[in-house]
This record gives sequence, C-alpha cells and structure tokens, in this order.
Amino acid sequence: MKISNYRIDLESVVDEVKKQGYNLIGVQIPEGLKIHGLRIIDFLHNSTGKDFVLNVDPCFGACDIPYNSLKEIGVDLIIHIGHLPISSVVKKTSLPILFIEAKADLKLEKTVEASIPFLVGSKVGVITTAQHIHVLEEIVEIIESNGLKVVIGEGDNRISQKGLILGCNFSAATSISDDVDCFLFVGSGDFHPLGLLFNTKKPVVAADPYTGRVRVDELLDLKDMILKQRYGAIAMCRHAKRFGILLGLKPGQQRFDLAVEIKKKLEEIGKEAYLLSMDEFSPSKLLGLEKIDCFVSTACPRIAIDDYLRYKIPMITPAELDILLGLRKWSDYVFDQITEF
Amino acid sequence: MKISNYRIDLESVVDEVKKQGYNLIGVQIPEGLKIHGLRIIDFLHNSTGKDFVLNVDPCFGACDIPYNSLKEIGVDLIIHIGHLPISSVVKKTSLPILFIEAKADLKLEKTVEASIPFLVGSKVGVITTAQHIHVLEEIVEIIESNGLKVVIGEGDNRISQKGLILGCNFSAATSISDDVDCFLFVGSGDFHPLGLLFNTKKPVVAADPYTGRVRVDELLDLKDMILKQRYGAIAMCRHAKRFGILLGLKPGQQRFDLAVEIKKKLEEIGKEAYLLSMDEFSPSKLLGLEKIDCFVSTACPRIAIDDYLRYKIPMITPAELDILLGLRKWSDYVFDQITEF
Repeated sequence: MKISNYRIDLESVVDEVKKQGYNLIGVQIPEGLKIHGLRIIDFLHNSTGKDFVLNVDPCFGACDIPYNSLKEIGVDLIIHIGHLPISSVVKKTSLPILFIEAKADLKLEKTVEASIPFLVGSKVGVITTAQHIHVLEEIVEIIESNGLKVVIGEGDNRISQKGLILGCNFSAATSISDDVDCFLFVGSGDFHPLGLLFNTKKPVVAADPYTGRVRVDELLDLKDMILKQRYGAIAMCRHAKRFGILLGLKPGQQRFDLAVEIKKKLEEIGKEAYLLSMDEFSPSKLLGLEKIDCFVSTACPRIAIDDYLRYKIPMITPAELDILLGLRKWSDYVFDQITEF
Repeated sequence: MKISNYRIDLESVVDEVKKQGYNLIGVQIPEGLKIHGLRIIDFLHNSTGKDFVLNVDPCFGACDIPYNSLKEIGVDLIIHIGHLPISSVVKKTSLPILFIEAKADLKLEKTVEASIPFLVGSKVGVITTAQHIHVLEEIVEIIESNGLKVVIGEGDNRISQKGLILGCNFSAATSISDDVDCFLFVGSGDFHPLGLLFNTKKPVVAADPYTGRVRVDELLDLKDMILKQRYGAIAMCRHAKRFGILLGLKPGQQRFDLAVEIKKKLEEIGKEAYLLSMDEFSPSKLLGLEKIDCFVSTACPRIAIDDYLRYKIPMITPAELDILLGLRKWSDYVFDQITEF
C-alpha cells in the first residue's frame, strides 16, 4: 500500500493476521506517518475483520515498543511500522512483533549521482536508514558504475541489516572505517552524518533523497557548532558535585550496567551520584531535582544532543562524562552509542 | 521521617529492605514531594547500603506503577510513596510493591470544627484522601462530639481502606449515600468534592486541612461551571461521525472491555470508532488525528475534566457519551469512575 511517499506492505500483515489467527493487534506508526494512521487501521480492519489498537505514543525507533502494556490489555500481535528489529528488544517479550518497513518511494539516482564528485578516494562506505535500506543495492550500483569501490559494513547485534545506521548505533560504519576512504550517508537530518563524522573520523558526504541536496562542508560547520555546544555543556559540569545518572525505561534504551558503572566511577572520585529512571524523557520530569549539577543520560544518545536547549541543567552522554573526568581526550570526541554484542 | 508537611515511615522501609535482602529498589514519589526525592534516597541508601533508583516520571496514583520496566532493569522491590494500594494493579505483577503513606502532619481540629455548622441533617458521611486517612478516627470523634452521627463507607475492591476517596473512585461514599444526610470531604482540591456532589447527589462540605477553608456554596458554583463546560464538550460532539476511544496503558487505567463495549455501541448506530492506546496522556500525542470528531477516554477519569482546555478535539467520558447518545439523562450527570468488584 502506498502511504504518502512510502510503500508499506500492509498486504503481508493481512496475510499474517489471517494465517495466525490473531484477534487483537496493536499498531505502532512513526510520528511522520501518524496522520495516515486511521487509514492504515481501516485497511487492516476491513481486510481481516479483526480489532486493531493504534498506539499513539510517539515512537522513534524499535527501541520503543510497549509490549508489556499492550500485552496486558490483550493484544496478541504488535505491528511495528517503519523500523527494523532490535534483537535485544524482541528477545525481552513473548509477544510476537511484526516489523513492517516504510519504504521511501523516491527516485534516488540523481541524488546519488550528485554525490559522486564529493566522494574522496576510491573506496566508499555506504550507509543508510531503515526507510532507504531497500535501495542499498541500487545505490551501490550507481557508485560502482562511476568506477568507485563500495564497502557495506556489518553492524553489531543491534543492527539487523548490513549498511543500516541508527541514531544510537553506527557500528555498520565503524566496523569498516579502516577499509574505506570516505562514507556516503543516504538519508535526511543532521544527526546520523554527524555521528559518522565523529565516530569514524572519515570524510562524510550526506545525500538527502527527499530534497536532492548533497552536503559536505555544511556538515563540517555543523560539527564545529555541535562541538562548541558540547564543550559548553561539559564545561558547565566542571565543578559538579551531584550527578544524576538517567536510566531510560524504554525496552531498547535500558543500560543499567552502564549506569551503575558510571555511578561507581563518580563515587570513587568523591562525587555524589543518583540513579534516576524515566520512560519518555522530558525536561518537566526533572523539575524539583535542581540540586543535581549534571545529568548523564544512558538512554537514547540523541536526547542530550538534540534536546540540548530544552534542559536547564546540563545533560551529557557517558562518552562526554569521560571527557569531563579526563578519561577521554577532546580530540577523541564521539557520539554515544548503544551497542549490542 | 518528616518530609515537608508529611510523615513518611522510611524507617519501616529500611527494616523491610534489610530483612528481605532486596538489592535494587525502585522508588516512586508523588510530584509534590519530588523536590525531597534525593534526601529520601540518601536516607534509604545510607541506612541500608543498597542501590535505589528514583523514578522521575510523574505519578498521580497507585494506578501508575511502572513495574514491568523497573523489573526489566533489575529492580527487586518498588517503594511507592503517597498512595494506597490498588488491588488489581498489585495482582498484575510478581514484583513486590511496598506502599508507604505520606501522612499530612496537620492540626485538623479547627478546620473540622469549622465545618460543623455547614453539615446538613444528623448523619454525616466522612471521606478523605490517602494523605489524611490516618486521622479519620480523629475527624469522626470531633464530629460525634458535636452530637452528629458519622458513617464511614466501605469502598469496592479498588479502595483499600474505609472512607478513602480516589479521583477515579467514589465508592466509599456512594455505598452509603442512602444512609447519610450529607458528606464531609476532608482534603484539598475541587475534583473530589465535585465527584461527591455529582455521584452521591447529597450536600457536600469540603474542609481543606492545609488552608483551613470550609466550602459549600463555592462548590455548587464550581459544579455549575463544570456542568456548563461538560455540556459544551458533549454538544460539540453532537454531529460526530468518527470517535477515538482512548485506552490508557497505565496498569490501573486499562479498561479494554469498556473500550470495546463503547466501540460496539457506536458502530451499532453507524458511527466509526477507533481504539487508540496511550501511556501518559498528552494533547501532542493526538496531533495528526484531526479526522476524529470526538475522543472518549476510558483511562483516568480526571483527564477529560481537568485538562478540558488543553485538547482541541473534545474529549468526553464514557458516562458523558451515554448522555450524548441519549442513554443517560442530563439530570443524572455523573463523573466517570474506575470500579473494581
């Protein structure tokens, strides 16, 4: 079924629901497609006769599937649209989850062609997000037809397909960064290409298939700006005495061991550290905790970076804490990642 | 331990943690006391040597305990401060939950004395909230020493103590409304005494032990205002074709059977109805669903009433839907309740 600019294989969902005899199905749709949610539910209900519950909590990844509560209300299948499975999340529940891609239906050729002149060296690592992973082969062909060699990296266990990047995991790029001269990121937004710049230390070309824009220098400017912001955030914590270690409760964001490790690390040098848990992060939830001088977030790595301006008390990532504590050099600044081995 | 104006028996928590050998304890504190959260954690940690995780998601009742996710991060005990247990919630989890009262430490005598002249008839139903339930006996004595008879009602299974009122359950009052001439509500806020007015149809006197204020007529004015607001909300849904039936995912707010019943009721008269689930309610989560003409919330009954102005699309309660559909008379307007039998 074509929904906006995406192809979503709802027909296979219908087949699976009929075949397995599911009766109450929970549906998660990415924020950008929520406006089409009722149409999707109508199609699924009319094609199967079964009951569907649309979950309207915002959902930015496969890390965020409320299988426990959906199970409690009687859901016997979850349909998760738009993200690829994260194995550790799937393992935590007995409820079946059907991951259905939302495949961006775009003509990529021109955009990829336009990126060619900016690619450095002869070996290119190509990486993309879930909505474009189905055209990875097509991207490779275009680049190779221009005489370049393409390398597609295997990620760690959090990454279900070769060449896939998540906001919290760049392992399909870092695993091959020694083997390539540069990276081509196909997708939109700043976060992923910035993560590639920081964590692979290689030149990065970002090609946005929605707008056709290809960016290289603008990314470097953004990188400088982010570094300044992060320098500011870390500097604000220089005299911090009390640390709040934020633990995300979403199934794919729980890093309890890391949080405890950080707590010990801080206590060993005479700091006070508190473990604070939260489901959806929001600045208002931290009101009343103004005694804390610095938050260290172990949940989604994007929160500290993307929501920088929303939090009054500085929030840093575990990697940034290491810089603060002198355990990591500024020159080795990296975005935080949630890895799985 | 005295925290602000509350006595919280943290000493018994320390004993229990030591006795049972718990190692990682999740702590929930009501919003109003969150500012003292770190002090509570310090005390508990220093007294036991164990690890405590303060959950900072706002928590307005025992309906809202994230036992599943706290269990997933390894918590082996939850300490829930400020609310009394809801049996259906406790039953849903194998994780032990220790409910610790936050007992308001106030001199009640003057306030209760001041309410006496306003009490109607000879038999008074007395009802109060969790933070004052420990002085119920004292309240009864003051009233009886003034020559009146007091009746304390037993609630349904959602109500763990006689005379306790929740925002979602007035059964400890409605169970005795035929036996009393009026109700005395001891506590703060408008919602509970309004619920008593609507659902018991008896005169209500509200005595606020924090401010010392006693209200009768002001409540009647508030009742009129609420009725006008609700009339407005219901009227806005008069020509509604598409209904969104909101299902709360918090453990004590899940009313799936009611939601399905409402869906059927609507579909039988030719309306379209969608089941929409949500954890924490927020207007922003309903953006993109503007095709819906009317939301019917089966979650916390307070949301539709308290947050009236925050939602663009009208949101009504199941009881209000019955008024809309002509199944209940306006003269029998009641606040929605979550009951347990």
